[in-house]
Amino acid sequence: MDPDRVIIFDTTLRDGEQSPGISLNTTEKLEIANQLARLGVDVIEAGFPIASPGDFEAVQAIAREVQGPVIAGLARAQAPDIERAAEAVRDAERPRIHTFISTSDIHIEHQLQSTREDVKGAARAAVAHAKSFVDDVEFSPMDATRADAEFTAEVLQIAIDEGATTINIPDTVGYATPDEYAGFLRRLYELVPELHGVVLSVHCHDDLGLAVANSLAGVRAGARQVECAINGIGERAGNASLEEIVMLLETRADHLGFSTGIVTREIARTSRMVSRLTGYVVQPNKAIVGRNAFAHESGIHQDGVLKERTTFEIMDATTIGLEGNDLVLGKHSGRHALRSALEELGFRIDGQALNTAFKRFKEIADRKKTVTAMDLEALVTDELRDELRSYTLEWFDVDVSNRRPPHARVAVRTPDDEQVVGDFTGDGPVDAIFRAINAATRREARLREFRIDAVTGGQDALGEASVVLELAGQSASGQGVSTDIIEAAAQAYVRALSNAERKVQAAAEPEAATAEVELTPTP
Amino acid sequence: MDPDRVIIFDTTLRDGEQSPGISLNTTEKLEIANQLARLGVDVIEAGFPIASPGDFEAVQAIAREVQGPVIAGLARAQAPDIERAAEAVRDAERPRIHTFISTSDIHIEHQLQSTREDVKGAARAAVAHAKSFVDDVEFSPMDATRADAEFTAEVLQIAIDEGATTINIPDTVGYATPDEYAGFLRRLYELVPELHGVVLSVHCHDDLGLAVANSLAGVRAGARQVECAINGIGERAGNASLEEIVMLLETRADHLGFSTGIVTREIARTSRMVSRLTGYVVQPNKAIVGRNAFAHESGIHQDGVLKERTTFEIMDATTIGLEGNDLVLGKHSGRHALRSALEELGFRIDGQALNTAFKRFKEIADRKKTVTAMDLEALVTDELRDELRSYTLEWFDVDVSNRRPPHARVAVRTPDDEQVVGDFTGDGPVDAIFRAINAATRREARLREFRIDAVTGGQDALGEASVVLELAGQSASGQGVSTDIIEAAAQAYVRALSNAERKVQAAAEPEAATAEVELTPTP
Repeated sequence: MDPDRVIIFDTTLRDGEQSPGISLNTTEKLEIANQLARLGVDVIEAGFPIASPGDFEAVQAIAREVQGPVIAGLARAQAPDIERAAEAVRDAERPRIHTFISTSDIHIEHQLQSTREDVKGAARAAVAHAKSFVDDVEFSPMDATRADAEFTAEVLQIAIDEGATTINIPDTVGYATPDEYAGFLRRLYELVPELHGVVLSVHCHDDLGLAVANSLAGVRAGARQVECAINGIGERAGNASLEEIVMLLETRADHLGFSTGIVTREIARTSRMVSRLTGYVVQPNKAIVGRNAFAHESGIHQDGVLKERTTFEIMDATTIGLEGNDLVLGKHSGRHALRSALEELGFRIDGQALNTAFKRFKEIADRKKTVTAMDLEALVTDELRDELRSYTLEWFDVDVSNRRPPHARVAVRTPDDEQVVGDFTGDGPVDAIFRAINAATRREARLREFRIDAVTGGQDALGEASVVLELAGQSASGQGVSTDIIEAAAQAYVRALSNAERKVQAAAEPEAATAEVELTPTP
Repeated sequence: MDPDRVIIFDTTLRDGEQSPGISLNTTEKLEIANQLARLGVDVIEAGFPIASPGDFEAVQAIAREVQGPVIAGLARAQAPDIERAAEAVRDAERPRIHTFISTSDIHIEHQLQSTREDVKGAARAAVAHAKSFVDDVEFSPMDATRADAEFTAEVLQIAIDEGATTINIPDTVGYATPDEYAGFLRRLYELVPELHGVVLSVHCHDDLGLAVANSLAGVRAGARQVECAINGIGERAGNASLEEIVMLLETRADHLGFSTGIVTREIARTSRMVSRLTGYVVQPNKAIVGRNAFAHESGIHQDGVLKERTTFEIMDATTIGLEGNDLVLGKHSGRHALRSALEELGFRIDGQALNTAFKRFKEIADRKKTVTAMDLEALVTDELRDELRSYTLEWFDVDVSNRRPPHARVAVRTPDDEQVVGDFTGDGPVDAIFRAINAATRREARLREFRIDAVTGGQDALGEASVVLELAGQSASGQGVSTDIIEAAAQAYVRALSNAERKVQAAAEPEAATAEVELTPTP
């Protein structure tokens, strides 16, 4: 491979999915993984298989169905973790096991309650065990940037001796500055010359706003894999944004000299899909994928832009797939046109799924003058949420006024196919309908977060609602899409309730090991 | 001053306010400026006085009322701009004029349609003219990072000779990498030794995700002023985030050795205020001020955090004012308690304003069990929007169901104190009420964007709606707060309509100069 080609390792489905309130089901994870493959990422970290049966199932499904990228599963440096990861990724074209253990004293003492000697032993055993299942083994010394370089080097030497092919240096708590991070990598190269024979990787968190700069500093110090996530999601302030590091390397190839295999025109769509399925909004001023990143309508810079694009634009919006997306359907468009349009968007839909999508499309087309590519994306991702849905919204009536308290009546179909009806007078129409759903389903769910966004612009935009609620100690999210925000909100609430109920049931099952793993820190 | 003390120059109200869809009135700008003073910023760039009469008025009001920081006004390198800026900042304790002109050939040729010689002449005249009004003059060579270093140095030499006391080097298009930016500054120090006698400043945009890293690189190369904005708002992907650069310098003072005068425990509140008044959401994974930046409820890192805070936390949430904010009022709290609570939050409210706030507080307290500090902030900032409001919402009734089209009736009081009534059957309840408002006011406004957020958590959260609409070619935003999202949406729409109408009227006035200036690029 070209020595200046940088491997893009996407951890949206692992580190990103660990963000509070995100709960993707297997169908949603598969859809994201397929889109990541279209985007051209080199490695998909699909999950942490031992963390839960759902995680295992999703990693296995992605390993079996997604073609192109390496599929990685995360595992602590413990035999049961590695065996579970190996089983999950076994059917991938190119499987990888990514195993990790902390090398910082603060983690060894307080979090692992172990010793340096034991860490070395665990790393050795873990890499050797992983290597017995797959050739492609990645090892991460967690919290490396706060660890002793000499001790970390000893552990890396062991991992390489046991056959690790990628060594990843996580800045787990987002603490390093670019010079420190690059200096740390250079020191490791000195201490472990065998590092030149494997792929060095960077994994940076954005707690101080430096994730992209630290990743870049790492690449310039010799790393050739960058771990990153779409929209920069992940623990706390998240990981380095995939779109930022990729567009930085592309836009400044003149100065930096690196390349990636990313199909940049898929960036905008991938960002929208991840935002929609996770319910994590992208702020308007987010680099590359924020609504304003390419906005010159403001008038302020328009003058210069009109005279010569490059006066104020260093990137072209078409590069990331933001423009040229002028596919439009109307209420008279047929099933064939819908199917072609969906294929153009990368969705392969047939049979009953196509019938369902067409029915939804017609409902929306009746209310909207034109249905755009972005509307279709929202509808299709909305459909993805239905597979596991246990409650469904049948009908509702809400009376809203500022002259009397709002009142909602709602009918919900339960997983047992029973129609239940409830009503409530609330503080607002959304409060009223949420509590009416609680009343109908006899659940004591509590709303934690609620958000509504317009999917597309204009008076007849689709509204997308996101709900995070808590039921019996489990929190879960749900989304809904409609031209009616009350309907979108009710859909989102019913789906969140369904997700929460599955979590409550899973937690009630006697799987103590799972509960323990969910509390495990990761890089 | 301590040679390692970094001056924090906040441009939230200038570069930030230029973001599409933000339209703050003078009261709102004053409130933000007062909060910036509490936050301890050294310089407030309050606006671009020649851009519009509204900009001028706001800069003047801030110069007159806000104590503590230097108050700066922006001006192109032209006499009328400088005179207008001088007039606006005249009454400040410590006024500054910030004048700029591009030094990159691409800007000189395509945007200014001028020559290098003319740029030198303009810079000389502008700094000299500014200096005749104030001692404190800042000069920026716009697009410097894409300009010839030698030519930029010539222009800087001229600016310093004429008395500029701060020289700011903007990375206007967010193109530089940290090494390039630091290298450019070092080269300028070589070419212009007199730079050591003035304050060197950095102004970095985040187009490639490097604004904070570039700012840090600049400080390490000798700059002692950082231009930044709350929540990183600003043109396109925005400016360096104030909160990120400040917390980076604070948290890593061990390694970096710099300090600022920022009162960090005011950061969270300032971020919320700016987000609420601008309608610009902060994404959950935003560093420092995102909802998840300190989130450990995820369970994943909780284990380590419980054992020892520093295992996964490099900053304490109380440092930025996120916790310890346990002020709570209830429906039985009186006027005195409200006033004390507001004072604790930094709002000085008396007389009629206190009566109005108390009435709003009681309305909310009737619907919510407890009113928290964050609810109060939202209410008070909501009140700020009323002063200039020209339409007011009187009452509304909406019938919402998925079994028939939603229907809205609404009554609005016009600026002429007339009650007008309208109704509409729409695609959704929000669409219906918005169009009913159009029908009542006989305005053909078109919705461009719409968003609803929960201000605080829990079932009885306040909802905050943001609307951007377009009326006769002018776009404007409005916000509304209520426990009822339909009411919040209608309030936001009515306020956006009022703002748009004022813009339409202003545009109709024969002020060609204003219209031209609004299209002017800035650093």
